Amino acid sequence: MQFKEKTEQINYVYKGKIINVRKDNAILPNGSSAIREMVEHSGGSAVICEKDGKILLVKQFRYPYGEELWEIPAGKLNVGEDPAQTAIRELEEEGGIKAEKVVKLFDVYPTPAYTNEIIRIYRAEGLTETKMHLDEDEFLCAKWIEKDKIKKMISQGKIKDAKTLIALLSVL
Amino acid sequence: MQFKEKTEQINYVYKGKIINVRKDNAILPNGSSAIREMVEHSGGSAVICEKDGKILLVKQFRYPYGEELWEIPAGKLNVGEDPAQTAIRELEEEGGIKAEKVVKLFDVYPTPAYTNEIIRIYRAEGLTETKMHLDEDEFLCAKWIEKDKIKKMISQGKIKDAKTLIALLSVL
Repeated sequence: MQFKEKTEQINYVYKGKIINVRKDNAILPNGSSAIREMVEHSGGSAVICEKDGKILLVKQFRYPYGEELWEIPAGKLNVGEDPAQTAIRELEEEGGIKAEKVVKLFDVYPTPAYTNEIIRIYRAEGLTETKMHLDEDEFLCAKWIEKDKIKKMISQGKIKDAKTLIALLSVL
Repeated sequence: MQFKEKTEQINYVYKGKIINVRKDNAILPNGSSAIREMVEHSGGSAVICEKDGKILLVKQFRYPYGEELWEIPAGKLNVGEDPAQTAIRELEEEGGIKAEKVVKLFDVYPTPAYTNEIIRIYRAEGLTETKMHLDEDEFLCAKWIEKDKIKKMISQGKIKDAKTLIALLSVL
């Protein structure tokens, strides 16, 4: 059974720095019209990094929630950047770890009702320590946390970020 | 270490049906100003429902991706609705299953850089079959799928929705 919706008209209502917002006219499978609100985002990469029974997490303030969250290192794709390269770059910038390579684990659609963002999750391999180098307006701290401690954090509801939960649940 | 950002001014750039969009002025931990784009969403509930080694998934067209996705039953909170009640309601509407109760597994922040949506994930208990009753503009099909088949779907990258991956990885 196919339930395809067709785009009748694309209407931008906001063009911003990290997101654009559209309020499109769509045709539903039954032929009727509907409004579809959606956010355009260029996508990102995230990376799980494991060493000696510990996993690297970063703690970062997230404005929309007004909270600091524990997450795996991650960031937005630069224009034209290969997603694997984004993962390697962000791991070095946020975590101070240089990876020889990354292996894709998941393509994640974070909230498919209204965004087109794709988050690629990778596993880092061939690690060497280097230095963190954050963007000027980026404030975070990185920490290697024991897997047993992370399991506890998850069961206590202390890890809420979707990509991080997916990456951690797949390796714990 | 605390890296709190303060809201200086809230500016709505779009008010819609399922989302509002803001472009706020914020003060960073170092005292400098920044623009923070964010999406307001009222949040939703999702529910994992297991019976006889099978899990209930629904397949639904998602406009932002132009694809049909396999997801656990889920939906947006109605105004003033208790999130547990949303889970029970959506399970019945989308899956044709009545649950005696639901147990909270996770609070998920799907993509914390730019949305404030919270997705609550529940496990359904005390199941009886009833009838699906979809909204007028809702088109989806529900299916009980063997856990072994679901593991294979995950490893083949056929399940992409974040809440669904989190719920499945936590029980498989």
